[in-house]
Amino acid sequence: MSGGIREQFEIDLQSIDDQLVEMTRLVGSAMARSTTALLDADLPLAESVIAADEQVDALHHDLEERALVLIARQSPVATDLRTLIAALRMSADLERMGDLARHVSKLARLRYPNSAVPAELRSYIVEMGHIAERLVLKTGTIIANRDLKAAEELEADDDEMDRIHREMFAKLLAPDWKHGVETAVDITLLSRYYERYGDHAVGVCRRVVFLVTGDHAAAHGEPVSDQL
Amino acid sequence: MSGGIREQFEIDLQSIDDQLVEMTRLVGSAMARSTTALLDADLPLAESVIAADEQVDALHHDLEERALVLIARQSPVATDLRTLIAALRMSADLERMGDLARHVSKLARLRYPNSAVPAELRSYIVEMGHIAERLVLKTGTIIANRDLKAAEELEADDDEMDRIHREMFAKLLAPDWKHGVETAVDITLLSRYYERYGDHAVGVCRRVVFLVTGDHAAAHGEPVSDQL
Repeated sequence: MSGGIREQFEIDLQSIDDQLVEMTRLVGSAMARSTTALLDADLPLAESVIAADEQVDALHHDLEERALVLIARQSPVATDLRTLIAALRMSADLERMGDLARHVSKLARLRYPNSAVPAELRSYIVEMGHIAERLVLKTGTIIANRDLKAAEELEADDDEMDRIHREMFAKLLAPDWKHGVETAVDITLLSRYYERYGDHAVGVCRRVVFLVTGDHAAAHGEPVSDQL
Repeated sequence: MSGGIREQFEIDLQSIDDQLVEMTRLVGSAMARSTTALLDADLPLAESVIAADEQVDALHHDLEERALVLIARQSPVATDLRTLIAALRMSADLERMGDLARHVSKLARLRYPNSAVPAELRSYIVEMGHIAERLVLKTGTIIANRDLKAAEELEADDDEMDRIHREMFAKLLAPDWKHGVETAVDITLLSRYYERYGDHAVGVCRRVVFLVTGDHAAAHGEPVSDQL
């Protein structure tokens, strides 16, 4: 590429990175608001998350189009191409995170005016919500700054998410469970939504680690949590 | 591209299509065997599905590498580029379908020597297994032959999967449910695995429809079932 084209290409790549960071902000906000809507049985808040997911979908489709146009016009090779393909996949992960946040809000809406979460499990959901916020904040930092240290911390946060996921299951299956089947089903799904949200954040970050280090195993390793 | 290069490129594209079809065969077999392992509490069969998922993962990573090398070397534009990007995404969907089949086998293993499925729900799981087989067979045909008619039928099959998914939930939540919380949690997860498996098959087929017709809405529309 000539200097001017190269310069424009760098600007285009940066703009795609910025859009990915913006997507982390939106799906982070969506999950934070979903957690509140769930715990407070706040119907308008749940509705607003469900409606706002369109924005994330639109950003995802816009990013896909822009990346494809760049690939087609510039015929990038090696690192540039890998960066664009990685961006496409990160965008797909982020879009899915938005869906999962919306699923939480849909469950809040379904159980309104009750809360789907019994009092004794609220602290678990609060904690999963906090971890989700930390995960997605770090994901934004990792995309923006190629920050490998943050990527390591993020894996530890996700381990913590998995630990709570397992604890919730233990609670459901304990002989003294007294909240009935409907609540057990709700909690099963909710816990899985948060856990999958964490897995997709890990997926995004491993893509970045791969771009920086070329460590393919890190990029493709299955999250430990993606098991029953 | 010159004639010879074009010819080689067509061969490479065909080989990628063949690999996608091979992946549909593997993830179809995995789900069929998982369903049997689950219903018969067949531990060796479950273990074999869990072990065999590596093959699908390996095909997925191999396809990714080959598509990236093709994009990098040939700098394809327009239709060829879209075909390769679509293949990358279809491969990711198929890899995920393999994971979901493995999840079913893991649950079969977890409950061995019992079956996770109570007698009165066996017919639902049998039916979901059959639909999964039909879906993945059609997915293979659609990839191989760009068969839009089969793509329409596949959407109808997936609607049927969603109907059974909802019926299972209704069963769980009925006042006369007598199988306890653990079974309710198992059935919740199982039903969701089958339903998501169907969604990913729909995702693959919409990519093909998009390649043939350019109908972006069809490619990006969210499966109706991907809701609580």
